[in-house]
Amino acid sequence: MSVIATITTSLDGYVTGPDDGPEQGLGRGGERLHYWVMGGPWTYETEHDPTQQTGADKDYLDSLVATLGAGICGRGMYEAAGRWGGTNPFGGTLFVLTHRTEDAPDPETGFVFVDGFEEALERAREAAGDGDVVVGGGADTIRQALAAGVVDRLGLSTAPVVLGGGTRLFDGFTDDIDLRIAQVWTGEWATHVLYDVVR
Amino acid sequence: MSVIATITTSLDGYVTGPDDGPEQGLGRGGERLHYWVMGGPWTYETEHDPTQQTGADKDYLDSLVATLGAGICGRGMYEAAGRWGGTNPFGGTLFVLTHRTEDAPDPETGFVFVDGFEEALERAREAAGDGDVVVGGGADTIRQALAAGVVDRLGLSTAPVVLGGGTRLFDGFTDDIDLRIAQVWTGEWATHVLYDVVR
Repeated sequence: MSVIATITTSLDGYVTGPDDGPEQGLGRGGERLHYWVMGGPWTYETEHDPTQQTGADKDYLDSLVATLGAGICGRGMYEAAGRWGGTNPFGGTLFVLTHRTEDAPDPETGFVFVDGFEEALERAREAAGDGDVVVGGGADTIRQALAAGVVDRLGLSTAPVVLGGGTRLFDGFTDDIDLRIAQVWTGEWATHVLYDVVR
Repeated sequence: MSVIATITTSLDGYVTGPDDGPEQGLGRGGERLHYWVMGGPWTYETEHDPTQQTGADKDYLDSLVATLGAGICGRGMYEAAGRWGGTNPFGGTLFVLTHRTEDAPDPETGFVFVDGFEEALERAREAAGDGDVVVGGGADTIRQALAAGVVDRLGLSTAPVVLGGGTRLFDGFTDDIDLRIAQVWTGEWATHVLYDVVR
């Protein structure tokens, strides 16, 4: 069982474009970050099927899903994703970090609200069994996991775009971390590098 | 003939660690950025042969050198590299951007001092003939080239390290640039992605 942190950034290190929020989760121009997830260009206005990855982009995602036992993400990402329509699409339980747990959804949705990273990790490990715990975004959740020293592998997807602004993954992060390149997937819409964290 | 900008960053987007300068060109811990250039771990204190790349790291560098006609880099990089011992090791002429041109070296060294990016590009294009113009670091030189809209291809090498501080490649850069993944080299010490700049 491993803890795998995964996220997508632009070449300039942003996980969203400028002005991200509930109405436009990935910020201005930020949709391009997730072309690899959507199998190509998409917009918030048009229908988009979140299972249309192709080629190496799909292989990478499939490799994560194959060993996924449980997930952790931040409330901001959960809201920005429109709560994934009300049901966790990733398999296992997705623990959502939030200080506002009073409006927690029915656990049957696959989402569980948890107030604090440590508790989320403990419960996700328990729920994952032999599977991996995948820590998704947002940026602050990834930074918390890295700073806590609990991440075994880091999966960084880089989309071929310079955004020039937005939320930076490593904003304010001052730790020094050695990694080793474990595997690389070259997709059409992103390069995915899975790193082992050296300890 | 293409203009290719190339540089190496950490996962958190730094081209040097903290406290870079003439004595320690790549900053504290920044040597790890260039393990791929040196074929593995090296320090400023020990001898290191700059032609010891291996595997895909070597293939990537060879591909750049194969079509290189002339180069451009900043004065800071030139000094940080110890003026490459007094002779340009890259082939062609290396145009060094500097406002202090009074101590220019003998052109037979392969280095030519130029005061301004536009002039450097014009002269490098002329000197390159059918070859490519490779724009190396530092960060500000890459940003100038990208902002000028003259870059055809961007080669970004990512070393498997989080530095937590230093000089950020895209510091203060606010342009939005679309790219296309052209080729990826998976080395032991870095992942190299060559992008086409979409115009």
